[in-house]
Amino acid sequence: MTGELPMRVPDAGLPARVRIHEVGPRDGLQNEKTIVPVAVKAEFIHRLADAGLTTVEATSFVHPAWVPQLADAAELMPLLEDLGDRAVRLPVLVPNERGLDRALSLGVREIAVFASATESFAQANLNRTVDETLTMFEPVVSRALRAEVPVRGYLSMCFGDPWEGPVPAAQVVRVVLRLLDLGCEEISLGDTIGVATPGQVTALLGALGEAGVPPGRLAVHFHDTYGQALSNTLTALRHGVTTVDASAGGLGGCPFAKSATGNLATEDLLWMLQGLGIDTGVDLRRLVATSDWLASHLGRPSPSRTVRALSHKES
Amino acid sequence: MTGELPMRVPDAGLPARVRIHEVGPRDGLQNEKTIVPVAVKAEFIHRLADAGLTTVEATSFVHPAWVPQLADAAELMPLLEDLGDRAVRLPVLVPNERGLDRALSLGVREIAVFASATESFAQANLNRTVDETLTMFEPVVSRALRAEVPVRGYLSMCFGDPWEGPVPAAQVVRVVLRLLDLGCEEISLGDTIGVATPGQVTALLGALGEAGVPPGRLAVHFHDTYGQALSNTLTALRHGVTTVDASAGGLGGCPFAKSATGNLATEDLLWMLQGLGIDTGVDLRRLVATSDWLASHLGRPSPSRTVRALSHKES
Repeated sequence: MTGELPMRVPDAGLPARVRIHEVGPRDGLQNEKTIVPVAVKAEFIHRLADAGLTTVEATSFVHPAWVPQLADAAELMPLLEDLGDRAVRLPVLVPNERGLDRALSLGVREIAVFASATESFAQANLNRTVDETLTMFEPVVSRALRAEVPVRGYLSMCFGDPWEGPVPAAQVVRVVLRLLDLGCEEISLGDTIGVATPGQVTALLGALGEAGVPPGRLAVHFHDTYGQALSNTLTALRHGVTTVDASAGGLGGCPFAKSATGNLATEDLLWMLQGLGIDTGVDLRRLVATSDWLASHLGRPSPSRTVRALSHKES
Repeated sequence: MTGELPMRVPDAGLPARVRIHEVGPRDGLQNEKTIVPVAVKAEFIHRLADAGLTTVEATSFVHPAWVPQLADAAELMPLLEDLGDRAVRLPVLVPNERGLDRALSLGVREIAVFASATESFAQANLNRTVDETLTMFEPVVSRALRAEVPVRGYLSMCFGDPWEGPVPAAQVVRVVLRLLDLGCEEISLGDTIGVATPGQVTALLGALGEAGVPPGRLAVHFHDTYGQALSNTLTALRHGVTTVDASAGGLGGCPFAKSATGNLATEDLLWMLQGLGIDTGVDLRRLVATSDWLASHLGRPSPSRTVRALSHKES
């Protein structure tokens, strides 16, 4: 190979820098069959930070019976203390006040809550109406903010819902505004079942803009169920979004949505961003090596096309 | 499911209609290990036409020793005669005058030739310099045109080359202009090793426009090696291209390029186009059923994410 690939050719109308919100250790591992030992998780997160990722969602403080894959959250956090000192952001998911108490007692500095744009998924996931979930999050967010812990709001089913079909933008805007009112710093718009296409992304971001939500308060979180995640991400970048959720090696998905496959793979995203000359601070080769290493612990190859192509080349 | 997915939401600056140039039976099957019986190929092509595809590249008239998967071209073409009567376009690849003679004797009405933008691939694929391949194609194209058989020119390695790295746009423009001068009706720009990103697509289409090549004379042919095919296709559509090559079920790739995986899957493309309200005339469900059926003949699942997601749902 005489020249470096991908070739760097910027395109008009795109941001100079993108922050990748890495969700592999939480959203990824949560949805893998294999339960990964806590020492491997700690090494995984250290490797992700060493590859240059500055935000790594570390784990979830939900009840261990719900998500056995992440039942070791309290053991994991102390193993990551050095990363906090290196200014790596390590948010964790908390479902309720009890989860918040556990997280705060372990010195967590950033949290996320998980809401739904549709009634069907709010019922399936949290056994509550959308408004009831927001009521449940209210004290979580306000207490976190009093402790100077910023809160990210995840919003699921922003484009389609397995029970309800297409989700109207106005319905999503309403819940985004409620989450911002509660005090969430950033809202991650989730295409939980991976059905969105670029026109829908444009329409939702446009509706949010009209409602007064600046793109700097938004992140996008696309799933690759129908191969659409990267096109949708590109479309969101064209509309000013600069925070993108992705999962190293394409780990994970949604256990409640029947047809959901993995998140957008961080490596496939990075290939595009690197080609476009968009700065992320992440080293693609180190990240690929990390996903390969983790795949050996999971006993299956990475679903990321970039990981497969680059691993193949180096082997 | 109460609502149809994907939701139809057009986006600005995109064409109203796209013609899909289906390459599965030729570019796809050529690169599969399994040799498919001629009756299965004929049924495959009929099913593709029944799903609404209007252009299906049927086979290749290269020497059978080079591509044993397509050695049955002369037996296949008579099995497709009814499709010609239904105005389905069935181009075939011809490498040289001998191939042209065989194709014409079987009543072929449309052909394609296969050139390279790089010297390395011209040598590897055809054992000639780029200019020598163009000299070889000259009588093929002129004789085809005299027989009122239009010619498509494939151009490989338009973005990156496994030996040479990034490919300068000027080098691609030169060969595109030569192929048009020879009399090719349409040029398919191939990202044979799948390395392109959207800025490079914009830059190449811009350079071709400056050289006087209208987007209506171009097609794009992206590979999904690094998961970039659909984003690049979307970018090309934004720049006026309305013909897109894709392979049913994501069949095929390039046997000479080490890391190449499949072509863009027609189903993944269709999901995006359908969501964008772009007319193709193709029925996604029928196409998925066809790819599933062919996968059973190949003895492996389709690599298309849309095929996997929709098959899973229906099973």
